[in-house]
Amino acid sequence: NAKERKLRTELDRVVDFWLKYSHDKEHGGYFNCLGKDGKVYDELKYVWLQGRQVWMYSRLYRTMERFHRPEILEAAKSGAAFLQKFARVQASGGPGKCAFCLTRDGRTVKVQRTIFSECFYVMAMDELSRITQDKEIMMDRLIFWVQTDSSDLGRPQLPGDPPINSMAVPMMLLCLVDQLTEGRTDVAEKYKDLSGWCVERILQHIQRDGKAILENVTLNGKELPGCQGRLQNPGHALEAGWFLLQYALKKGDVHLQKTAVDKFMEIPFHTGWDKQHGGLFYFLDVDGHCPTQLEWNMKLWWPHCEALIAYLMAYGHSREPVLLDRFKQIYNYTFTHFSDEEHGEWFGYLSRQGEVVLDFKGGPFKGFFHVPRCLYMCEKLLDSLLERQDS
Amino acid sequence: NAKERKLRTELDRVVDFWLKYSHDKEHGGYFNCLGKDGKVYDELKYVWLQGRQVWMYSRLYRTMERFHRPEILEAAKSGAAFLQKFARVQASGGPGKCAFCLTRDGRTVKVQRTIFSECFYVMAMDELSRITQDKEIMMDRLIFWVQTDSSDLGRPQLPGDPPINSMAVPMMLLCLVDQLTEGRTDVAEKYKDLSGWCVERILQHIQRDGKAILENVTLNGKELPGCQGRLQNPGHALEAGWFLLQYALKKGDVHLQKTAVDKFMEIPFHTGWDKQHGGLFYFLDVDGHCPTQLEWNMKLWWPHCEALIAYLMAYGHSREPVLLDRFKQIYNYTFTHFSDEEHGEWFGYLSRQGEVVLDFKGGPFKGFFHVPRCLYMCEKLLDSLLERQDS
Repeated sequence: NAKERKLRTELDRVVDFWLKYSHDKEHGGYFNCLGKDGKVYDELKYVWLQGRQVWMYSRLYRTMERFHRPEILEAAKSGAAFLQKFARVQASGGPGKCAFCLTRDGRTVKVQRTIFSECFYVMAMDELSRITQDKEIMMDRLIFWVQTDSSDLGRPQLPGDPPINSMAVPMMLLCLVDQLTEGRTDVAEKYKDLSGWCVERILQHIQRDGKAILENVTLNGKELPGCQGRLQNPGHALEAGWFLLQYALKKGDVHLQKTAVDKFMEIPFHTGWDKQHGGLFYFLDVDGHCPTQLEWNMKLWWPHCEALIAYLMAYGHSREPVLLDRFKQIYNYTFTHFSDEEHGEWFGYLSRQGEVVLDFKGGPFKGFFHVPRCLYMCEKLLDSLLERQDS
Repeated sequence: NAKERKLRTELDRVVDFWLKYSHDKEHGGYFNCLGKDGKVYDELKYVWLQGRQVWMYSRLYRTMERFHRPEILEAAKSGAAFLQKFARVQASGGPGKCAFCLTRDGRTVKVQRTIFSECFYVMAMDELSRITQDKEIMMDRLIFWVQTDSSDLGRPQLPGDPPINSMAVPMMLLCLVDQLTEGRTDVAEKYKDLSGWCVERILQHIQRDGKAILENVTLNGKELPGCQGRLQNPGHALEAGWFLLQYALKKGDVHLQKTAVDKFMEIPFHTGWDKQHGGLFYFLDVDGHCPTQLEWNMKLWWPHCEALIAYLMAYGHSREPVLLDRFKQIYNYTFTHFSDEEHGEWFGYLSRQGEVVLDFKGGPFKGFFHVPRCLYMCEKLLDSLLERQDS
């Protein structure tokens, strides 16, 4: 209960922080690069983060009473308008590509040859459309890119770089299907096969006789050679875990529920928790080699956010005490290390020892998303836990 | 003198390490990803690093008597043969593009939309050709890409991302001109304008009334907005410093000699040296914001290598005691932190506090280059210092 109060006030503080500091009143959209006290230190606008912020505001407005306020809806709409006006790239890439990064006034700075800018665009527009009833569908093109032909993404086909199954892609699509199908049985029917396909692709990442979750595998679900094949990202596995569990609970698929917890939550905890200094490592190599990512041993905010959601969801479902213990352990690390009592919001990047190494609140990859989504989900999960206890 | 003996034995050890562990006897070329004990942990071959290794072996063979041995020449040739067979990309990119990364057997994994793979290819082939008399000229195409039209590189022209003057480009070309013109007056004449152009472009990075060296500026030498514009890379500035000093000494340009030392050696030391833990920071923001690069506060091997060359060259030229002090300070940090007594070679990546965070000896960006080039250059510089003292 103390935890629930804490989560609730923390969510309020986080929303206030972004409302106060991130809005660009001149050009619309949001500033993403905010210093520890909220000051803008770079004016570039990142499309992933713009889309996620629209989504988060809209979701809070629609599903949490205390955020059902006109300024939250206005906040979402201003970002959506900016995206609709500027996110799509005309100049290059195939049809329908979105930029990765824009100038303050909306000129394209960078285009990634992946699907994620488009995914967060779809996610944002769908959530907002549930309030405004507008419609905009980019989803079919995304499915085409992923399942049929990715050449419009602009990635060259190289003989030494065959297509792989990177866990981010089926996770992202499963997340979008969940977004688009909520409360719409016709849409759910349309995407039924797709969600099954996503789940299957995610499960292919269980490797080494069920003892490891690997980030990248072949399209047939076999292990890839080298560093790429041995890469583990515990926070990402945990995020996949709660995506799968949520899906399995909806379907009533008991076997998949168990797999989600046993494989995608227990394994990353055992491999990913730093027994010496606490916190979850960012990257690990399954054979114990040193990862080549320079940030491998840092403690990032988002894996901890995803872990909190995963263990609370799993506990709420099974009431296994060990899952509550995991939640508490992550909770204690997270709130003592990431949350900034002084200026609000959370730091994103700690050293292995737990010191703040990058002190900004918003940056090219940290926006109004993982922290508020975690607080929002945990508040909802705790509410329903307490409700069930009361009744 | 103790330092000179140390540098000499360290160079021998480093050469032995790469000769012993990096050669792929089956497919040719070199393994780049070597663990701390030399074991291969990934078989990918990085073209920058292949080219640099060919260059380094060839240079040692040609210019240092104790390395004028058949196995050193063979080592160089095996890498060159691999590059000539596999480095050029047919499938994509404009004509003449080289891959960034290859599989063990030479299939293209990745192509960067920059000029650097091609630069290191040119550097390698030129140095080797000074022994074998072969010729292969890719230089004119590089100059065309940089000065006239870069569209063959495959980078889309984006309205929010106009061309900039990134210090790496003129530095790289100045380095290539130095390589190609050594001992060839006709070639020197051909590239005279180009080297002047490179120097001018490098000097544009002196900003803030002469008080800062910034990595990225506009094509007119003005400061760029945002994080990109405020970025400082002290090790890179120091490397530019000795490139400029070397050029200025050759030209007898006293004014440029002074600029090289005062601006490109003194400023990066004052801004880049970590007064608390020692060592040079990797990235800094000129206004004191936190850089967005996660590795900003790490201590990397190569800035320290470049600093050693810079200060020893500057001291050898001016005999200013303060420059010798700088050399000693960097030397002490470098040899107590990076050099691995047990297995040989140097660690590449330390935490701010100076602990080894990534323990491999070779990786996607660390090969047989900065360490041996530094030891080689310092040995040469010390030899000539001692010679002049004797005479």
